[in-house]
Amino acid sequence: MAFRQRHLLGIEQLAPDEITTLLDLSQHYAELNRGPDKHGDALAGMTQVNMFFENSTRTLASFEIAGLRLGADVMNMPMQASSIKKGETLIDTALTLNAMHPDLLVVRHPHSGAVNLLAEKVNCAVLNAGDGRHEHPTQGLLDALTIRRKKGRLHRLTVAICGDIAHSRVARSNIWLLGKMESRLRLVGPPTLIPSGAADWGVEVYHDMAEGLRGADVVMMLRLQKERMDGGFIPSEREYYHRYGLDAEKLSHAAPDAIVMHPGPMNRGVEIDGTIADDINRSVIQEQVEMGVAVRMAAMDLLAQNLRAARAA
Amino acid sequence: MAFRQRHLLGIEQLAPDEITTLLDLSQHYAELNRGPDKHGDALAGMTQVNMFFENSTRTLASFEIAGLRLGADVMNMPMQASSIKKGETLIDTALTLNAMHPDLLVVRHPHSGAVNLLAEKVNCAVLNAGDGRHEHPTQGLLDALTIRRKKGRLHRLTVAICGDIAHSRVARSNIWLLGKMESRLRLVGPPTLIPSGAADWGVEVYHDMAEGLRGADVVMMLRLQKERMDGGFIPSEREYYHRYGLDAEKLSHAAPDAIVMHPGPMNRGVEIDGTIADDINRSVIQEQVEMGVAVRMAAMDLLAQNLRAARAA
Amino acid sequence: MAFRQRHLLGIEQLAPDEITTLLDLSQHYAELNRGPDKHGDALAGMTQVNMFFENSTRTLASFEIAGLRLGADVMNMPMQASSIKKGETLIDTALTLNAMHPDLLVVRHPHSGAVNLLAEKVNCAVLNAGDGRHEHPTQGLLDALTIRRKKGRLHRLTVAICGDIAHSRVARSNIWLLGKMESRLRLVGPPTLIPSGAADWGVEVYHDMAEGLRGADVVMMLRLQKERMDGGFIPSEREYYHRYGLDAEKLSHAAPDAIVMHPGPMNRGVEIDGTIADDINRSVIQEQVEMGVAVRMAAMDLLAQNLRAARAA
Repeated sequence: MAFRQRHLLGIEQLAPDEITTLLDLSQHYAELNRGPDKHGDALAGMTQVNMFFENSTRTLASFEIAGLRLGADVMNMPMQASSIKKGETLIDTALTLNAMHPDLLVVRHPHSGAVNLLAEKVNCAVLNAGDGRHEHPTQGLLDALTIRRKKGRLHRLTVAICGDIAHSRVARSNIWLLGKMESRLRLVGPPTLIPSGAADWGVEVYHDMAEGLRGADVVMMLRLQKERMDGGFIPSEREYYHRYGLDAEKLSHAAPDAIVMHPGPMNRGVEIDGTIADDINRSVIQEQVEMGVAVRMAAMDLLAQNLRAARAA
Repeated sequence: MAFRQRHLLGIEQLAPDEITTLLDLSQHYAELNRGPDKHGDALAGMTQVNMFFENSTRTLASFEIAGLRLGADVMNMPMQASSIKKGETLIDTALTLNAMHPDLLVVRHPHSGAVNLLAEKVNCAVLNAGDGRHEHPTQGLLDALTIRRKKGRLHRLTVAICGDIAHSRVARSNIWLLGKMESRLRLVGPPTLIPSGAADWGVEVYHDMAEGLRGADVVMMLRLQKERMDGGFIPSEREYYHRYGLDAEKLSHAAPDAIVMHPGPMNRGVEIDGTIADDINRSVIQEQVEMGVAVRMAAMDLLAQNLRAARAA
Repeated sequence: MAFRQRHLLGIEQLAPDEITTLLDLSQHYAELNRGPDKHGDALAGMTQVNMFFENSTRTLASFEIAGLRLGADVMNMPMQASSIKKGETLIDTALTLNAMHPDLLVVRHPHSGAVNLLAEKVNCAVLNAGDGRHEHPTQGLLDALTIRRKKGRLHRLTVAICGDIAHSRVARSNIWLLGKMESRLRLVGPPTLIPSGAADWGVEVYHDMAEGLRGADVVMMLRLQKERMDGGFIPSEREYYHRYGLDAEKLSHAAPDAIVMHPGPMNRGVEIDGTIADDINRSVIQEQVEMGVAVRMAAMDLLAQNLRAARAA
């Protein structure tokens, strides 16, 4: 099988054929989810534990529904902020949980790298549901699946990722993925919200929306993550919307059939105009959410297959 | 089938034969729940999501047990107060969830009409688990089932609903239901807690418990909902109990075989004397809770049948 | 069958042959949990409700995984502190839940005896997941299973239970269990943390770690429960660690093959040195967690068998 991973920690580790395998199976689940019989048994008898050290109703729901639909025993562990003060506690928590023999461990954590660290300590398959500013691989995959369904391919597209790149693990996972699949990437945003090293990532950097969006096939808006801007520069929402918020005028510079994406939850009137977000001819935001469940089903299915093969070996 | 609804938003929309169909199936589930084998598969493969924008341990547990017993994949979405500040957010949340393809969506919301609004936006069946002062249809149905089991019928009964009518969606659902089934309804309470338009609802209004309870077959006490009395008149508990709290003396005016009901949770010593509440010869309060699970199983079963039929069509 | 209980409220009520039956079945589940196929149907069709009036991520997760693996419908009821102000409310809550026909009720409560009181009011099997300073029977059983696996027996062992005995239901359950199985028990700790009546329990009391650990086969450390020391003497952590914290020097007085136990969560550097806790040649702390799931599966399986037999009778 063309998916050789023990964990899904980031897009960085995946080869293009592994991404294609994941997306093909996701496409299968996307069709099942729209039909009358969306319950399977790929994870029957397996224990899936969701450990979210950061709140995320949407991502947690998506993983939970994915696991339930595949027949897993699914458990949510509410991790209070108080229990993660020390790195040591994360390891103790991981070892304790590991002793209960979970098969799939879905982890979201506010610190970059925490999920990789945890994966070294446990015997089960670990899925990164977002760690700090590092990666959010299932978001990258669901974005790719949505693009592939709308554009028919992932290569030779011009994709503009706009806004708060600096604080976004979503941007990082998308940059890895679309780069591996040979699309052309542009980062568009104010200098303060684009990392200084971005020019070395094989992307083009723009500070003007009209220029950055010119001829783009995909316009991916990011949420302005004020909660992560500890101590740094925080733009005024009004000024930000004026210069970087996606409205009809700015979108007019993109390709006529450009699609508009957003990982949610949206700040309407800050990074995106509500009318654009709701325009079913341009916006694929609801389909992104839909593909999220399918991608998580596929990722857990493939990891479970590898886990079974490793145990049988 | 004599149940033609896509959603269960209120009793107002139901015809008498639909109510009877629901209660007959509920009676079947009530018997199953008392037996050794209470697990079925009417909702197998379906995804039930419980979205409670208001806390309610009891109602949530009842819906959750009902769904699990019917084999659904059940997920609770904890909705924090902060996410419901704007109506727009409710719709965004609904659309996001809808994209995950749930089949049954159980919603409790503090605003009257919010659940109906949400039902217009989604593809699945929506069950109203209480919205503001509007309706709480499964409570009306479980009360009706309890009455029918004790009295053998729902017509030609005299039912006194007592206390805080003004803030009670339970009262509204019961007034609709018992009116449709041709019972005689009395509302009993202080003028400040009975809506001014109540006289137009085809009910009798009393401000004195002895008069209001005279000859009643059913005495339904309501919880004094101080948390909903924003800015209005709040009676002292001592004075309220003296005039409107159900005690043996007041109950003596009802029919000798009158049953005592309360939707819970009770304020003992405020709207009801604890001894009356615990008197197994008069109080059917525990049976109301028991019937709650059965009614929710029946409602979800019937809605799922209609959903399957609509998809096959 | 050699397990005759309707509830599992404490170790005190169990006969030695019942303990052996429980541990034998636990050992079976422990092996299953390590294998590829750990999902069974011993609780299929049964409703398990977890009511935790005290937070405990670890114990709740263990019971939840145990129930899911045995095919139960598992529901967690979050019980806020506010709902347990009055004893009356506990009973109302129990009666309400009982009306929903659960089969297994797992209860943790801050007050000693609360779980026994609740068990008198309901029709289902009740498992005590810890009540005040009274008992925590599944912890006693998982400790016993861990010891039996490492030492091959439960009789004629010298077991030193060290630290905060006064506030520990874990200590009480272990004292009952190991006493019944004819091991020799020592309690080691400062006079302020050993109950004055302990000398009457058939145990030896030591205030010095070197003496208390001399030749011990099992060294069981307890968590210093500052949160339970309302108003009483609270030792300084530094002083406490110096005199009673388990380090290599103190452990050197125990038998050369002594095992080190801790019920978790640990205060590293307070009651135990982190290096000792992590030493896989001495510490069995992770295996205790692992055995926890197995013991809870066995206990629920046996109680469910008795429940079915009682209903069929």
